Amino acid sequence: MRSEARSIVRPRGMWRGLAVLVVGVGFLSQATAAEPLPSWHDSPARTAILEFVERTTTPGSPDFLEPAARIAVFDNDGTLWPETPLPFQAQFVVDELKRLEGDHPEWKENAAISAALAGDVTGVLRSGPGQGMMLLEATHAGMTVDEFNDRVRRWLDTARHPVWNRPYSDLAYQPMLEVLDLLRDHGFAPYIVSGGGADFMRVWAEEVYGIPPSQVIGSYGKVRYELRGDKPVLVKEGGIELIDDREGKPVGIHRFIGRRPVACFGNSDGDQAMLEWTTIGHPPSFGLIVHHTDAVRESAYDAHPPATGTLVTALEAAPRRGWIVVDMARDWKVVFKPVAEPTER
Amino acid sequence: MRSEARSIVRPRGMWRGLAVLVVGVGFLSQATAAEPLPSWHDSPARTAILEFVERTTTPGSPDFLEPAARIAVFDNDGTLWPETPLPFQAQFVVDELKRLEGDHPEWKENAAISAALAGDVTGVLRSGPGQGMMLLEATHAGMTVDEFNDRVRRWLDTARHPVWNRPYSDLAYQPMLEVLDLLRDHGFAPYIVSGGGADFMRVWAEEVYGIPPSQVIGSYGKVRYELRGDKPVLVKEGGIELIDDREGKPVGIHRFIGRRPVACFGNSDGDQAMLEWTTIGHPPSFGLIVHHTDAVRESAYDAHPPATGTLVTALEAAPRRGWIVVDMARDWKVVFKPVAEPTER
Repeated sequence: MRSEARSIVRPRGMWRGLAVLVVGVGFLSQATAAEPLPSWHDSPARTAILEFVERTTTPGSPDFLEPAARIAVFDNDGTLWPETPLPFQAQFVVDELKRLEGDHPEWKENAAISAALAGDVTGVLRSGPGQGMMLLEATHAGMTVDEFNDRVRRWLDTARHPVWNRPYSDLAYQPMLEVLDLLRDHGFAPYIVSGGGADFMRVWAEEVYGIPPSQVIGSYGKVRYELRGDKPVLVKEGGIELIDDREGKPVGIHRFIGRRPVACFGNSDGDQAMLEWTTIGHPPSFGLIVHHTDAVRESAYDAHPPATGTLVTALEAAPRRGWIVVDMARDWKVVFKPVAEPTER
Repeated sequence: MRSEARSIVRPRGMWRGLAVLVVGVGFLSQATAAEPLPSWHDSPARTAILEFVERTTTPGSPDFLEPAARIAVFDNDGTLWPETPLPFQAQFVVDELKRLEGDHPEWKENAAISAALAGDVTGVLRSGPGQGMMLLEATHAGMTVDEFNDRVRRWLDTARHPVWNRPYSDLAYQPMLEVLDLLRDHGFAPYIVSGGGADFMRVWAEEVYGIPPSQVIGSYGKVRYELRGDKPVLVKEGGIELIDDREGKPVGIHRFIGRRPVACFGNSDGDQAMLEWTTIGHPPSFGLIVHHTDAVRESAYDAHPPATGTLVTALEAAPRRGWIVVDMARDWKVVFKPVAEPTER
């Protein structure tokens, strides 16, 4: 392209300088437009992601994958956005209990709900087995799916994260948004595969990540269809049909996608089974773990102490399995999207 | 385009004739290429399909739908391919029992299996409650998903339909394949939503219908993930987690797609709930029922006698709901794809 332009234009003097400038600016803007993963430091993790995408999508490469095989799965909490101090869905439960407690005087007698309203997580756990599920059902069941969607939407529109003081939907990890874009630009279909509730995530996954509802796999409960009068409704009932966590993740992947993925991104031992299912004996494939090491910009919580850490066995397995470990403190230039400044004139 | 060509070329004499010919052939080939649903007689059903697609995909139309909303759901057995004399998956069960009976001398003592091996469906039903499920488990569980896929693949490659003497994968309804193509050409995503087994259908749905595994929704059982040695496997266990039929169809649609469809194609009362969920109070939307009226080319079995018919309440509701009823005998020029003739020279 550049040599062709040179041979046709044959620039002289000022015109030559202008032509060089035009070509240079063209090259520069092309390079800028093509610069992938700009929020990542030049690191082994960034290089590994770029290399995997290149060798699986370059025609003629021995590792070339047909577009139909380009399936990438992402855990959500702790991988695409934070899970501290509480997973966001747990914060939604607490906020909903607060919003609704005036209508439920009987909740005052309930130890688990009282603990949740006081923000006392260990109090909820101490209140007895199955109490977490009871809290979920109090806020997620006994309503139509449309009513539930409206509740999640209202919460997203009004709640702010207690630490970062931003709407929850504003807290996606910028470097991971860039991974999603890179993969989509190369024909990959990204799926969320999360222990979180599918109905909860589907309300916002498209606007936050660009991932449509049909590509959001999560835990789900029973749903009942009925004609109410002459209006068809789906009612969310209690009970869990799939816990899409740990060994449940490959099950969810099989049930919803029906193919083995080729790329898997997680952050905890809960993602180890899907990292295995994606990568072991299944080349070319890619596994990556987001390791929460950044006590300044986010929270360094995952691997210590090992007895209660959320990332222990998967981190230990990573070198043997060839999974890439991202050190958030070292590898990411930014954690969140920059806050949009109010424009002043 | 045509008037522009005329004003530039200004043909005279022979050239004029040639130009008219070129324009004419161009117009004709354009018309031929654009002729949708060629296996459908000019009928109210064909017109209704074409009109729905046009008004929902033409920019500026008051009924225009964004591409993300263009979700179409199709029942499979009796809608996209036949279900007579047995649903094809039931025939797979019988053929698998025959293939495996030598390894299972204990089956001789089993009334349901003996009836199935003799092709005696009522004998299976008479043998007791839960016996159909037992037959399913004998042929669908206790193996990895890969092993099951291989079994279905081998059956498809060898079995032939007892009436039409063609491979089962060759028996899709040609007019419905054209509907799938028309919808895809206009940006719709077609999903199968069938009472049949998801794992069974996903083996062949892509080659038969062009529908990828992630868009195949069906009944499914429990699956267990494990590392076997150091190899990750998914094992098909017994039991059913979702019966994707009747009121289960809107549930499956919600669980897998997460949006209400705008077009629904079925053939029986088992599809009535998803026809309702797609259409009632949800414009613009489209419902269609394939009515099996063709005793000569296929089988006229669905609506008579009403006491045992498979299409009774949905057919009765159709006029009130605005669902289109396809009369196969009257509306379809052909039922199946023409058999490929062996080429002779």
